[in-house]
Amino acid sequence: MPQQLNIGYLGPSGTFSEQAAQTLARNFPLHSLIPLPSIPHVLLEADKGNIDLGLVPVENSIEGTVNVTLDMLAHEVDLDIQGEIILEIKHCLLTKEPHGSIQAIYSHPQALAQCRRFLQKNFPQIPCITTDSTAQAAQIVKESREPVADLGSMQAAREYGLFVRFTDIADYISNKTRFLVVGREKLLDLKPKKTSLFLAVKENRPGVLYEILGEFARENIDLTKIESRPTKKEFGDYFFFLDCKADLLEEKNEVLKRLENTCRLVKVLGCYGSVNL
Amino acid sequence: MPQQLNIGYLGPSGTFSEQAAQTLARNFPLHSLIPLPSIPHVLLEADKGNIDLGLVPVENSIEGTVNVTLDMLAHEVDLDIQGEIILEIKHCLLTKEPHGSIQAIYSHPQALAQCRRFLQKNFPQIPCITTDSTAQAAQIVKESREPVADLGSMQAAREYGLFVRFTDIADYISNKTRFLVVGREKLLDLKPKKTSLFLAVKENRPGVLYEILGEFARENIDLTKIESRPTKKEFGDYFFFLDCKADLLEEKNEVLKRLENTCRLVKVLGCYGSVNL
Repeated sequence: MPQQLNIGYLGPSGTFSEQAAQTLARNFPLHSLIPLPSIPHVLLEADKGNIDLGLVPVENSIEGTVNVTLDMLAHEVDLDIQGEIILEIKHCLLTKEPHGSIQAIYSHPQALAQCRRFLQKNFPQIPCITTDSTAQAAQIVKESREPVADLGSMQAAREYGLFVRFTDIADYISNKTRFLVVGREKLLDLKPKKTSLFLAVKENRPGVLYEILGEFARENIDLTKIESRPTKKEFGDYFFFLDCKADLLEEKNEVLKRLENTCRLVKVLGCYGSVNL
Repeated sequence: MPQQLNIGYLGPSGTFSEQAAQTLARNFPLHSLIPLPSIPHVLLEADKGNIDLGLVPVENSIEGTVNVTLDMLAHEVDLDIQGEIILEIKHCLLTKEPHGSIQAIYSHPQALAQCRRFLQKNFPQIPCITTDSTAQAAQIVKESREPVADLGSMQAAREYGLFVRFTDIADYISNKTRFLVVGREKLLDLKPKKTSLFLAVKENRPGVLYEILGEFARENIDLTKIESRPTKKEFGDYFFFLDCKADLLEEKNEVLKRLENTCRLVKVLGCYGSVNL
C-alpha cells in the first residue's frame, strides 16, 4: 500500500505558497498538506524528516532573493533541492463589502512593496499596515468592523469570502515567485535542467570571481543567478550563490572538480527540473 | 549664515537607523533629524529635495541586501550615494521588569531572524511576534500589561525605559549593517574609495558576466559585492549590482567606457567614502 506523503509549506492557508503546494501535491496520489508558521520551520521539519517534502519561496521577480531560504540551505540543513515551481502572482485588492470607502490597507510588506505605485496613485492618503502574510491580512479584513482592505490573492478572496475590488495591481506586468521543493529523500523524479551551487573561495582577491565564472563560460553554461552573500563573519568576506542551466552532477561534473582550484567549499544544493503547473 | 541641513532617516526614534543618522549629523553643525516611515519615503523625499540628505540601510552582514533600497536607486530616483556608514548591531532582549517570565517576544522580522538560534535555545516555547521596527516592539513592551519582551538596541532600552535582560544575542559574532547616505546635491566631501554600479547587459548569453568581470580583473580592482536582480519583466532576464574598491569616475574611467561594449546601461550610483564613526 502506498504511504501518505507529508508536504509542509509556509502557511497559513490562502497564501501563494499554498497554491504552489497544491501544484506539487498533484504529483502524489496520497498526500497531506501541512501549513507551517515560517520558512525556518519548513526547512527544519524537512531536515528532521518530520515532513517528506518542504516547499519554500526563494525568489520573487520583483522583490528578489528570500535570504533565509538560501542561507539555511547552505549552512543549517542537509536537504536536496528536488524541483522548482514558478508561480504567477496576481495581487488583488479585497474588501468585505462590494462598494464604499477604505480606511486602511493590510498586507505582507512584500506585497505592499510590489503594489507601491498603484497604492500611491489610487490610495495616497490611506495607511498601509503590515501583517505576517497576505492571508492573515484577509482574515483581519473579514473580522474587522471598519471598512478596511487586503492586498492578496484570488484564492484568499474565495477562502475568506471577500469581494475583489481591483485585480492584477502589481507595479510590473510580470510578477512571479519561484519556490523550491526540498527533502532528504529523492521523491520527485524530474529531469535535471538546472544546478544550484554554494561556493566559498579560498582567498578573497581581485579576479577570483572572474576565474570562477571562467569555468562556466568555457563550457558555454548559462548562469541564471549570481549573488555574493556576507560570510556572517566579516564585511567584505563573501560566499557566492550560483544557479546555472546544466546538470553539473551527471553531465558536467568536471566543472565541479575544477571549481576546487579556487574554492575551499563547493556545495551542490540540488540538480533539478521544473514541476509542471 | 549657514543653512540648516535636513537629514531624513528610517524611523521611528530608537532604531539602528537613528544611530547611523546621529553619526552622520555630527558632520553638520546645524541639522535637523527627520524620522520617516519607510525606505521609499526617505528616498522619494530626498529625490524631491524635501530633505537634503537621506539615510537608508542597504545591507546587513547576516540578512544580506535590502532590495528596495537598491532597486529604487537604480530605477526610481535620481540620487547620488555620497557616503556609507557601517554600524555594529548589538541586539538585546529588553523587558519592563528586571526579572520574571516572558510570554511573547516582539521584534522586526530581520532582528528575530538574526537571533534565531538564541531564541530557539533559550525560549523554545515562547511565540515571536513581528513588528514594523525594533523600536515599535519596544513601545509595545512598554505599554503591555503582560510580561513580554523586545529584541532591540541599548538605545531603545534607554529611550523606552526597559531593562536589558540579555546583551549581544545575535547568532554570529559580527553583526553589522551598512547604510548609504544619498542626496541630490553633493554635501558630504569624503575621498571616494568605492563605486556602486548598476549594469544591464545588451544580451543575455553564456559568458557575458565573465566578460564584464574581466574589465575589473584586468585593472586589478577588487569587487566587494555582486548581485544579479530580476529585471521585473521576465525571469532569467537580469540586471547586476556591483560594488568595487576604486573611484571609477575619476581614476578608472576607462573601465566605465569599456563596460559599454557588453552593457546597454551603465549607471554609476555613486563614488564615495566612509563616514567616520
